[in-house]
Amino acid sequence: MSNTFGNCFKVTTFGESHGAAVGAVIDGFPPSIPISEKDIQPQLDRRRPGQSSISTQRNEADLVEILSGVENGLSLGTPITLVVKNKDKRPGDYAQDDTVPRPSHADYTYLMKYGIKADSGGGRASGRETIGRVAAGAAAEIFLRKNFGTEIVGFVSSVGKINAKGIDFNTVTRVMVDENPVRCPDLDAAKLMEELIHEVKNEGDSIGGVITCVCKGVPAGWGEPVFGKLEAALGAAMLSIPACKGFEIGSGFEGAAMRGSEHNDLFVRRDQRNMTDRSSPLRTLTNRSGGVQGGISNGELIYFRVPFKPAATISRDQKTADYQGNEIVLKSKGRHDPCVVHRAVPVVESMAALVLADMALGQAMRNYD
Amino acid sequence: MSNTFGNCFKVTTFGESHGAAVGAVIDGFPPSIPISEKDIQPQLDRRRPGQSSISTQRNEADLVEILSGVENGLSLGTPITLVVKNKDKRPGDYAQDDTVPRPSHADYTYLMKYGIKADSGGGRASGRETIGRVAAGAAAEIFLRKNFGTEIVGFVSSVGKINAKGIDFNTVTRVMVDENPVRCPDLDAAKLMEELIHEVKNEGDSIGGVITCVCKGVPAGWGEPVFGKLEAALGAAMLSIPACKGFEIGSGFEGAAMRGSEHNDLFVRRDQRNMTDRSSPLRTLTNRSGGVQGGISNGELIYFRVPFKPAATISRDQKTADYQGNEIVLKSKGRHDPCVVHRAVPVVESMAALVLADMALGQAMRNYD
Amino acid sequence: MSNTFGNCFKVTTFGESHGAAVGAVIDGFPPSIPISEKDIQPQLDRRRPGQSSISTQRNEADLVEILSGVENGLSLGTPITLVVKNKDKRPGDYAQDDTVPRPSHADYTYLMKYGIKADSGGGRASGRETIGRVAAGAAAEIFLRKNFGTEIVGFVSSVGKINAKGIDFNTVTRVMVDENPVRCPDLDAAKLMEELIHEVKNEGDSIGGVITCVCKGVPAGWGEPVFGKLEAALGAAMLSIPACKGFEIGSGFEGAAMRGSEHNDLFVRRDQRNMTDRSSPLRTLTNRSGGVQGGISNGELIYFRVPFKPAATISRDQKTADYQGNEIVLKSKGRHDPCVVHRAVPVVESMAALVLADMALGQAMRNYD
Amino acid sequence: MSNTFGNCFKVTTFGESHGAAVGAVIDGFPPSIPISEKDIQPQLDRRRPGQSSISTQRNEADLVEILSGVENGLSLGTPITLVVKNKDKRPGDYAQDDTVPRPSHADYTYLMKYGIKADSGGGRASGRETIGRVAAGAAAEIFLRKNFGTEIVGFVSSVGKINAKGIDFNTVTRVMVDENPVRCPDLDAAKLMEELIHEVKNEGDSIGGVITCVCKGVPAGWGEPVFGKLEAALGAAMLSIPACKGFEIGSGFEGAAMRGSEHNDLFVRRDQRNMTDRSSPLRTLTNRSGGVQGGISNGELIYFRVPFKPAATISRDQKTADYQGNEIVLKSKGRHDPCVVHRAVPVVESMAALVLADMALGQAMRNYD
Repeated sequence: MSNTFGNCFKVTTFGESHGAAVGAVIDGFPPSIPISEKDIQPQLDRRRPGQSSISTQRNEADLVEILSGVENGLSLGTPITLVVKNKDKRPGDYAQDDTVPRPSHADYTYLMKYGIKADSGGGRASGRETIGRVAAGAAAEIFLRKNFGTEIVGFVSSVGKINAKGIDFNTVTRVMVDENPVRCPDLDAAKLMEELIHEVKNEGDSIGGVITCVCKGVPAGWGEPVFGKLEAALGAAMLSIPACKGFEIGSGFEGAAMRGSEHNDLFVRRDQRNMTDRSSPLRTLTNRSGGVQGGISNGELIYFRVPFKPAATISRDQKTADYQGNEIVLKSKGRHDPCVVHRAVPVVESMAALVLADMALGQAMRNYD
Repeated sequence: MSNTFGNCFKVTTFGESHGAAVGAVIDGFPPSIPISEKDIQPQLDRRRPGQSSISTQRNEADLVEILSGVENGLSLGTPITLVVKNKDKRPGDYAQDDTVPRPSHADYTYLMKYGIKADSGGGRASGRETIGRVAAGAAAEIFLRKNFGTEIVGFVSSVGKINAKGIDFNTVTRVMVDENPVRCPDLDAAKLMEELIHEVKNEGDSIGGVITCVCKGVPAGWGEPVFGKLEAALGAAMLSIPACKGFEIGSGFEGAAMRGSEHNDLFVRRDQRNMTDRSSPLRTLTNRSGGVQGGISNGELIYFRVPFKPAATISRDQKTADYQGNEIVLKSKGRHDPCVVHRAVPVVESMAALVLADMALGQAMRNYD
Repeated sequence: MSNTFGNCFKVTTFGESHGAAVGAVIDGFPPSIPISEKDIQPQLDRRRPGQSSISTQRNEADLVEILSGVENGLSLGTPITLVVKNKDKRPGDYAQDDTVPRPSHADYTYLMKYGIKADSGGGRASGRETIGRVAAGAAAEIFLRKNFGTEIVGFVSSVGKINAKGIDFNTVTRVMVDENPVRCPDLDAAKLMEELIHEVKNEGDSIGGVITCVCKGVPAGWGEPVFGKLEAALGAAMLSIPACKGFEIGSGFEGAAMRGSEHNDLFVRRDQRNMTDRSSPLRTLTNRSGGVQGGISNGELIYFRVPFKPAATISRDQKTADYQGNEIVLKSKGRHDPCVVHRAVPVVESMAALVLADMALGQAMRNYD
Repeated sequence: MSNTFGNCFKVTTFGESHGAAVGAVIDGFPPSIPISEKDIQPQLDRRRPGQSSISTQRNEADLVEILSGVENGLSLGTPITLVVKNKDKRPGDYAQDDTVPRPSHADYTYLMKYGIKADSGGGRASGRETIGRVAAGAAAEIFLRKNFGTEIVGFVSSVGKINAKGIDFNTVTRVMVDENPVRCPDLDAAKLMEELIHEVKNEGDSIGGVITCVCKGVPAGWGEPVFGKLEAALGAAMLSIPACKGFEIGSGFEGAAMRGSEHNDLFVRRDQRNMTDRSSPLRTLTNRSGGVQGGISNGELIYFRVPFKPAATISRDQKTADYQGNEIVLKSKGRHDPCVVHRAVPVVESMAALVLADMALGQAMRNYD
């Protein structure tokens, strides 16, 4: 029942993986902002399958169409509907799923919840559901960029046990991220990650990874205490992405092992560090808070990490049970990714954009004079 | 603007740390359930300060009063209002705060957001705000226990770099957790943690830690895809607690380093493991999913971990800036905790209870025949 | 920002009158219910223009397409997306509107609110926006009929000063209502109404009217006090329809002139009146309450009345002002209806269905055992 | 489950008529606004019983206390909690109610909905529930008056068949309204109304009436199409008040009998009528729209009418049925009002204020630059 995200910038996604279409309706997109399909398509292209040898070969152009809310290239302030038709549907691939719940997929739980489930592919639990998120997130970014100069950059920081090093959060860009198929701007690590993914693929297996995301140009004052704290909204956004198992912001889990005297971010006058952000008079010398204090942005760079489990679909035999509890050996026939993390980068960015757009409007509500 | 949590079991908290009272209104508490102050007080007692030498000495009995929604010991289905009066207010302790934002507190961000802030203590950003959560969460637990047999147990699994070991999630109870002041059921670790907290206290410093929480007796089918996934709601709930910097469920960040073939939870017939939970026909051999698949509970034990940064208030000099950016040395005079993690245990449990009660009612919405 | 209706059965509508499409997304439609385009089309056919000589001649087939949420003819419990393409767009008809706000239309207020407006036709303020409501309402009716036997029948009870008489709320059906183009089941009145509408049309004018709506088979217990009272939700639903200027339920405005001793609905044992509704042990001898007491249905027939102002678009010269305040004479060139009330009948029924489906799920939330 | 009103300016009311307290929590009250109990008490005094011989004699001072959200006389932007203790509780008066549902009260429907009801008085269905609304509405008025100069004036326009005449909506004030106990500024009608109420009281009966409410100084642009239209929100607000049976805005039901050529409000340059409202460049010559077009305020005066049925509690014998359906003669022993309409005036004003404050913040959300 919860297919809507946000309180002010509200996004409702719809569509099953093998139905007619997937998409989103944005209610609350501000009026008079230039927006067209061309602005939205690039992020969908970054998300879509078949981009390289490390992704699934499902062939989808994933072309977005705007059905409402835009006229003469400008937003009207009314709901913007974004639709992507599903082209390459292959229901036959999933025939066995009708009797066997795929391990660590959502087949079993959907059936327990709804008493029915899409009989081909994952339905709403499929990664294709994220198309609506990415389309809406790309729209949100247009607003954020135009009105606040906000930029969001996600990248793969780990695949398996390989960790990226030495990435400068202040200077990393999407262009740098996209220089290799793994979307890791540490090129040495990227090479190892790519090798690992190929190795895993050859073994019919899958591998997980971590995405780090940075948000630059977020003014101080965004976030809605106490339950709509910025980190709570970001956490919920990320944890709603398929395969995500966690979230940490700023010092995160490591911070829990620190002392207050080393963790506290001391204040300094803003211009001591010669920054151009004019929205807040103070800066912090360090940023273990990750740009958020008390649930509200403080004008510093926001950064957080998001772990993704290995894709549940593998090409190996799995000794599991059918819906009646009978032991059975399951073989996957569907197309799948050995690693989804690099494709999840625009999804993470998009969910961050949805959170920030929502917070921007929430804070605007205070300009009532 | 977001002081309400939940969609079906809605809790609105209110109150500043040094105002007249703190509390909560629950809208959606089911009717005809036995509930009284006596059922709620114990969790408040576990949360309140002054319980031992490792907590702040602010003297608050934190007695809860029910103002509405209950008659003759039964809930009416109408809003239940829970109020705790603030007794031991000491505004004087915070005089210097008017000119200097406390590092890694919310003074600065509240001012940036609202243009005003409570001039004594943390106001809504204070740990006292969690009283409303705990009171409401204790009420939610009454409902969950009575109607579903759900039990929630949180405990301290790390303080600083000391980690608990060997805790059996299936058998751990609150009684075991409360056997030592640190609330860590690994007694060896608990002893080390307690020593560390005293050491930190003597140094005028603070230390962070991690809480692990397990939820038993959650039926399969709870959680609202796609944005209200159970892990997303739990994550948001935890990340809305003051000082929380992250969240991970099931395999969490470690799962990101694993392969699908080792991470997947294979299904087996339920009675193979001789379990008494009748709500779902299948079990999983392992539980790396943490009891949630596709955002919906699968009937297995739910477990997650929550890191808390070290308390920002310390008794050491801090070289920081005042609101004008002038360099200044700040000394804390307020009462504070060297470690808040053990006191956060009932807060974590309560937020989990609020999520689960909300999901229980959300799923009940499907019983419309 | 409020294009979503309902809390449990949530409907988001989208689309401008001269954009690519109009439609709706339903979030919360129960799973496993048979539903197809064929079930939804009939109400759209009753709403669409060009049905008779008393309606606008805009030529729109208004064929609905289901994009998501249904597989193999059954609902999945996931969002159902309903889309109707706009075919007969004629932006040219509205050229003058760019300089002159049409009197009693929403041109001026949309511009004041959003700073921009759709430059052809009414955009979201057009009657075409109601297509999404009717499509979603028709879907809601499937659920209500199947699970509760609820039937909703609206009819035109007044056009101008002509009032229908002698209509039996208990026996009136849609078939009876559709026997004449005015949708008034008092055939004598219907004839006079039709003549009046033709007269008004010939004079280049428009005329208002009143719709009465009855809801049968609503179980006792629906409605969410205190702010979600059934009459409050129905009132909001109706007053959100274009051109609606009021709402009254049961005795309505007349009831305000009555005494308690004549207004009170006395209780009797249910079977005294030989009714078959088993959901409530008592009946009332009279029904001045209109089926709702204290905001909750009491099992009696629900009835209410909804007045619609005359359509603002007329073919007469209007001496008004342009956006700069200059006096100007406006002539309408767009297609329009001399009377919209008969076409609003399925809209009223659909909005009632959305309210009732929402309340049905809200009450289901109490079946949590 | 719906005890919260509003999307931006959110008010949650709580409390039963014979419980410990009634009140409200406001989430979204803007920061830095001067507010104290003294600002709120006057509207509660206008609502409270025992003001004159035409009201119930229940003796309640209804003193409001602010528990949170205000410090040093200024709002903090955090939840404002307003509590009024119940003093004069007399549960004994309602003993018979345990076996007999009072006709046209909510006893029966609450029991059908919740399976339990408050056993003394109306619980949440009592008029005392409106105390929370009035307290919150008085707070909303402070914000509206300070930031927009908005003024809201309600008055009794009908009691029974006696109708007020000649009231100038532009000049009527609360002082004029309060000059007589009936709160009708047509003093001739007021005298007749007062006589009628005494007559009805002597006969042990009750009488209904109509309240007219005008809102001045509402800027153009407030209201949230399509489902949050200003008239829809006002209608829902009014219809959620106990005993309300309808709502009409502007021309209302009369407008349904008019032609477009007489109903349309033609535009003129604003200064032609020498008004001081600067927010909109145009005015309308007439105001049949009631200040709202397309669901958005147009800068004209907003006016609407609200009918209230006669109070259900009367001192006459009523031949009705007990919960088992047995015929019984019910005699009322509780205190009651022969007419509630004059006491409902501040309730209507308060609900209007809650709607307008919510819309003000909703529109502020568009000032995001």
